[in-house]
Amino acid sequence: MSLLIVGSIALDNVETPHGKVVHSLGGSAIFTSMASKNFCKSSVVGIVGDDFPKKHFELLNKNEINTKDLKVIPGKTFHWSGKYNDLNKAETLDTQLNVFADFDPQLCEDNKNCDYLFLGNIDPVLQLRVLKQMDNAKITACDTMNFWITGAKANLLKVINKVDILFINEDELRMLTEIQNIFEAAQKAKEMGPKLIVVKRGEYGSFAYSDEFIFFAPVYPVRKVVDPTGAGDSFAGGFMGYLASVGNFEESTIKNAMIFGTVTASFNVESFSVDKLKDIKIDDILARKKVLEKSILL
Amino acid sequence: MSLLIVGSIALDNVETPHGKVVHSLGGSAIFTSMASKNFCKSSVVGIVGDDFPKKHFELLNKNEINTKDLKVIPGKTFHWSGKYNDLNKAETLDTQLNVFADFDPQLCEDNKNCDYLFLGNIDPVLQLRVLKQMDNAKITACDTMNFWITGAKANLLKVINKVDILFINEDELRMLTEIQNIFEAAQKAKEMGPKLIVVKRGEYGSFAYSDEFIFFAPVYPVRKVVDPTGAGDSFAGGFMGYLASVGNFEESTIKNAMIFGTVTASFNVESFSVDKLKDIKIDDILARKKVLEKSILL
Repeated sequence: MSLLIVGSIALDNVETPHGKVVHSLGGSAIFTSMASKNFCKSSVVGIVGDDFPKKHFELLNKNEINTKDLKVIPGKTFHWSGKYNDLNKAETLDTQLNVFADFDPQLCEDNKNCDYLFLGNIDPVLQLRVLKQMDNAKITACDTMNFWITGAKANLLKVINKVDILFINEDELRMLTEIQNIFEAAQKAKEMGPKLIVVKRGEYGSFAYSDEFIFFAPVYPVRKVVDPTGAGDSFAGGFMGYLASVGNFEESTIKNAMIFGTVTASFNVESFSVDKLKDIKIDDILARKKVLEKSILL
Repeated sequence: MSLLIVGSIALDNVETPHGKVVHSLGGSAIFTSMASKNFCKSSVVGIVGDDFPKKHFELLNKNEINTKDLKVIPGKTFHWSGKYNDLNKAETLDTQLNVFADFDPQLCEDNKNCDYLFLGNIDPVLQLRVLKQMDNAKITACDTMNFWITGAKANLLKVINKVDILFINEDELRMLTEIQNIFEAAQKAKEMGPKLIVVKRGEYGSFAYSDEFIFFAPVYPVRKVVDPTGAGDSFAGGFMGYLASVGNFEESTIKNAMIFGTVTASFNVESFSVDKLKDIKIDDILARKKVLEKSILL
């Protein structure tokens, strides 16, 4: 099955204790699509400026990531500049929306018929516009962030009410629900509409929460985190890509998707940008999956 | 097999968002022994003042916790007063060592022959004195805290070098090893001597680290944490109690001990003091173990 990915596409400056990069390929749609490439074909929906290097288009297309709805308009590509001091929390130094300010996702007919949809962390108004164009999607998912929870809650709640899966980090889940206990908070979020809440907890892993089950995925024991940027997006990419490759929404599929998401994200944080994601193959993923499974097997 | 538990015995004042208690039974040796009671017989080594209520002795003895080496001397029992604002971090309001300042653990002959030893978080000098009296122990374990890492590191390293298992929380592991990456830090701690490092991560669960394996135990999804005091000690009590009940140090035994420790701690945090620990039976523990196992089963 095919996966449609909507989100930001950026040229980022990132500095971590392990180095720095300038104008490197980033953005939620990039990390998610590059993370899903080993599982399924995908299409990205986004916008870039005419400064966006041609080699990035080539990278996407080489990985069977369709760019028909990746619009290029005159101007500069979205730019984020950030710094990690302790690898757990990014400090934003600069954000330049640039052409992203004019983003108005319009899907081509092919993309409207994708079976799986991932709405990356963008303005809920835009997420809603995409949802409206996707009547036939089998499974829909969204991510969000504190900025929209505080600034666009009404629209965000509409999005959450419509999707099957909410990806959210633990601080934002507490902010969204105003509940401190993380399991009570997940329950409250579930009552907002989605069938499944996927709570991301950074270096502590993640858990999936539904009416039927709760499933904890530990983090993959990475020894050297080079750059955490895109960890959540690459987790979602591995998760959604695997889901789309299987084509059902059963408990065991979801649990395996959690492990595939975890493993995919573990590769992503070992390099800047998508440097590692672009090179890994399904065998690399399966090898780490085996290690991770052993670490939770009684 | 029998378990010897050395640690503090206290009359605590604790305040959390769910209430407060005054002069309630606490201390590392109490939480550990009451947590191990469903798995094995134990003996506590500690000291209290003549204000220590007789009913607490009765509670311990009723649960087959031997108090021969629980010394009573004139004076007041160790007192800790603390407050939790967000249930994750205690704010110490007052500490009165009282008779605990004169603690000099001397074991009776029976206790010297215990097979399993847990050294709760006390001055490493005292931990060393107990270790010297326990030549025949099969498995020894210790806990510690930031106070000793900064203030008594040389002696603490001697203790760590001698024990089989180090229980430590993640912040303290980073402090002890001066390594930020938690898996690298666990590796460094292992090189200090123990066969096994058990890293406690509060609401995120724990992991066990050895040369042969790594095992992640998620936290039990408690919906209402009433008082986190003693969570780490009751985890260690469930862990060590189960280990002593099985009598080997195999990988599968250790992994199950992680789950038993987690489940036992989950009961402890649902009440003040040992109010819940004292009432639970092995069937309650097994029921939660089943739930927890399901939440990590693919």
